[in-house]
Amino acid sequence: MPDKPLPDNEINAFVPGPRVHIDGRPGGPLSGLTFAAKDLFDVASYPTGGGNPDWAKYNPVPTRHSWAVQRLLDAGATLVGKTITDEVSLGIVGENAFYGTPINVNAPGRVPGGSSSGSAAAVAAGLCDIAIGTDTGGSVRVPASFCGLYGIRPTHGRIDVSGMMPQAPSSDTTGWFARDAQTFAQVSSVMLGESIPSALPHRLIVAVDAFAFAEPEVVEALRPLLEKLKALIGDVREEVMAPGSIVQWARAQRTIQPSEAWQTFRDWIERCNPRLAYNVARNIYRGSQIPESERHWAELVRREARGRMCYLLPSGTILCLPTTPFPAPKRGEPLSLASVQRDRILCLCAHGGLTGVPQISIPGCTAEGLPIGLSIVGSHGSDAALVAMTTALGGPV
Amino acid sequence: MPDKPLPDNEINAFVPGPRVHIDGRPGGPLSGLTFAAKDLFDVASYPTGGGNPDWAKYNPVPTRHSWAVQRLLDAGATLVGKTITDEVSLGIVGENAFYGTPINVNAPGRVPGGSSSGSAAAVAAGLCDIAIGTDTGGSVRVPASFCGLYGIRPTHGRIDVSGMMPQAPSSDTTGWFARDAQTFAQVSSVMLGESIPSALPHRLIVAVDAFAFAEPEVVEALRPLLEKLKALIGDVREEVMAPGSIVQWARAQRTIQPSEAWQTFRDWIERCNPRLAYNVARNIYRGSQIPESERHWAELVRREARGRMCYLLPSGTILCLPTTPFPAPKRGEPLSLASVQRDRILCLCAHGGLTGVPQISIPGCTAEGLPIGLSIVGSHGSDAALVAMTTALGGPV
Repeated sequence: MPDKPLPDNEINAFVPGPRVHIDGRPGGPLSGLTFAAKDLFDVASYPTGGGNPDWAKYNPVPTRHSWAVQRLLDAGATLVGKTITDEVSLGIVGENAFYGTPINVNAPGRVPGGSSSGSAAAVAAGLCDIAIGTDTGGSVRVPASFCGLYGIRPTHGRIDVSGMMPQAPSSDTTGWFARDAQTFAQVSSVMLGESIPSALPHRLIVAVDAFAFAEPEVVEALRPLLEKLKALIGDVREEVMAPGSIVQWARAQRTIQPSEAWQTFRDWIERCNPRLAYNVARNIYRGSQIPESERHWAELVRREARGRMCYLLPSGTILCLPTTPFPAPKRGEPLSLASVQRDRILCLCAHGGLTGVPQISIPGCTAEGLPIGLSIVGSHGSDAALVAMTTALGGPV
Repeated sequence: MPDKPLPDNEINAFVPGPRVHIDGRPGGPLSGLTFAAKDLFDVASYPTGGGNPDWAKYNPVPTRHSWAVQRLLDAGATLVGKTITDEVSLGIVGENAFYGTPINVNAPGRVPGGSSSGSAAAVAAGLCDIAIGTDTGGSVRVPASFCGLYGIRPTHGRIDVSGMMPQAPSSDTTGWFARDAQTFAQVSSVMLGESIPSALPHRLIVAVDAFAFAEPEVVEALRPLLEKLKALIGDVREEVMAPGSIVQWARAQRTIQPSEAWQTFRDWIERCNPRLAYNVARNIYRGSQIPESERHWAELVRREARGRMCYLLPSGTILCLPTTPFPAPKRGEPLSLASVQRDRILCLCAHGGLTGVPQISIPGCTAEGLPIGLSIVGSHGSDAALVAMTTALGGPV
C-alpha cells in the first residue's frame, strides 16, 4: 500500500458503471472493514459481468447475493465495489482487452496477475481491506504473489460457490485477499466458519522440484521468509512434490480445465457469439477440441497427484513452494511471450486445481524490488492451520 | 430501394464517428452520383477501421486515398461515407458483433450478407448510388444476391488494390455494387478503364452442379431470368462446372484463404491480442493450424480448377449459376447454424477466389419475397463483356 493512496480511477480496479455500496450488518466480527467482490460474484440487483461485455446480456440480473458476498455482509464488512476480472476468469496475468489492466501499485509497469486482477489491485492500493476472488488454476494465488498480498485458495469444495460464476467446476474455488496477517486471519475465520487454532504445523516439506523450477532470484528472494518458516516449525524435509514432473501435472490441468470450461461456456458461445480477446477465444476453442482420450489420461494423472498429496501431507505437515516462478511480468507483452509466461506459471499452480489442497500465498519478499509470494500448502481441510501459520509468521521478515 | 428511404441511422450502414464527405471532380463521367466505401479502403485522414475496434490502433491513419476511392473521385462521384464490414473482412452473412448488422431493406429481418455488408445495405436503401467492397470468398457477390443488387467480383489482379486492406492476397479483389444496370455499367466502365462493348457473348453454359446444389425454390425463382439470358444468347449448353465436385473446390478455398489470412493478421494478433467475435477468432486460429501438406493439396486443386475454367470458358462463352444457394438467412442465428450456412454459401462462391475469373451477380428475382441473384462468369479479363450482358438483360424480367 503506497503512502498516499492513488484515487480509484487511477487504479482501474472496479468495473465501469454505477459503483455498488452495501453496508455490512452492524456489530459483526468484520465491522469497520470494507471489501470488494470480483465481478464473478452475484450481487443482488447488479449484473454479473464476468469481465466480458457479452456475458451479462445472456444472464439475468441476479436477485440475491452470492454466498460469499452474503457471508461477508452478515459478518459486518461493507461491500464497496465489484472488481475487474480477466474475461470469464480465463487468464492469469490480469489484462482485460475490454476494461483495461488494473494498476499494481506495488510493481509499477507490471501486470497485477489474474484472473482476480481488480480484487488484488484494489486491496494492494488500499481501496478496501479485503477482496474476494476465484481460483481455478491460480487466479487468487498468482495476483497475491504479484501484488504482495495474502491470498488463499481454500480446500476445493469447502466454500459454498452459490452465486459464483463457474468456469471449471472440478477446480473452481472462492478465495480472498488481505494486506496484513491480522485482517487475513479475521476474514479467513469468517469465511471458513472456524476459529484459527493456536497450534502450528509440526513438519515442513520444501518442494525442491518447485523451487528448482523458479527463477534463481526468486529462490534467493524467498530465502529469509523460508528460513523463518523453517525455524518456527523445526522439522524440515526436502521432497519432490510431483515425482512424475510438475510439467505433467500442469499438462493434466491444462486438459481438464479447458475441457470443463468449454462445457461451461459452449451454450453462451453458440447463442451469443460473444466478443472476446483473441487469446481468450483461442483458449476456449482449444478446449472444445480436446479429445476424450486425453481427458481420460489427465484424470489418471489427477488421481495419482491426489494420492501423492495425501502421502506427502499427513495431518500436521505442510509443504512450501514459490507461488509463482517469477514476479509480475511487464504489462502489454506480445501474445507469444505472454503464452509462455502463462504456461510457466501454471507449472507451479496446477497442483491446486488438480488435487484440491488448500494453499496460502504469503507476502513480504521482493525480487529486484517486485513482490513475490511464498506459498504453504496443507492437506484437505487444513485451511485454518495454514492461516495459523501465516499469523505466526506475522509482519515483515 | 423502398419508396420512402429510411434515415441513415436506421440502416446502420455507415461506420460510427464523423461521416466522411469528399466531393468528386466536377465534370467527370460519374458526376452527380454518390458512392460509399467499405471500411477496408483507405480514405486520406480517416482511420481505416477494418470492422474491428483494434485494427486502427495498430495501423496509422492513411495519408492518401486508396486507388479505388481516388478513381471514383476523379471520375466525378462524391464519397458520402465509409461502410460497416464484417471484422477484417472475415464473414459472409454481414453480422458485426461490434458495430451491429446493417439493415437489408429488401429482406426485412434478414442479414445483408457480408463481408461488404454496409456497402450493399447503403446502396439497397438508396443512401448512395454506388458502393465499393472487396470480394475474397464471396464478399461482394453474396451481399449483392441477398440485397438484390448488381455486384461484381472482377478478374483477380485486374483492379489495383493499393490502399485496400488485404485478407488473402491470392484471392482478394475490389468489387462494386449498384441498384440499376445503367449505373452499374457506368461505374464498371470507370473502374475497368474500358468502354462496355456492344457485342454480347455467343454461348452460355448452365452449371448444372451449381444449380443442383441450390435450394429448389431458388432454381425456380431464377428460371425467368435464366430463360431471358438463354433467349438473348441462343447457344446454350448444360455442363458440370467442377467435375471433381464443388465441395472439393470449397474445401481447397477454405484451406488457401484462411492460411493466407493468418499470414496477413498474425503480427497484429501477436502484438495487439485484438478483441474479436468468437467465430472470427476461431477462424483465424484455425487458419494458423492448417498444415503445409494440406496447403499443397489445395494448390493442386486450384491448378486443376483454373484449367477447368479455361477449358469451359473460351472467348465469347459465359457460364451461369445461382449466386447463393438460398436467399438471405435470418439475423441472429445460432453459431452452429450460421457456420453450416456459411459453408453452403462457400460451395457456390469458391470458384472465384480459386480461379480468379470475373463474376457478376444480377438482381431481379425473388424467392418467397426475398432477393436472390443469378450470376454470370466469364474468362479472365472478360469483365466488360459480362457488364455488356447485364446491360442487355436490362430492367425487370
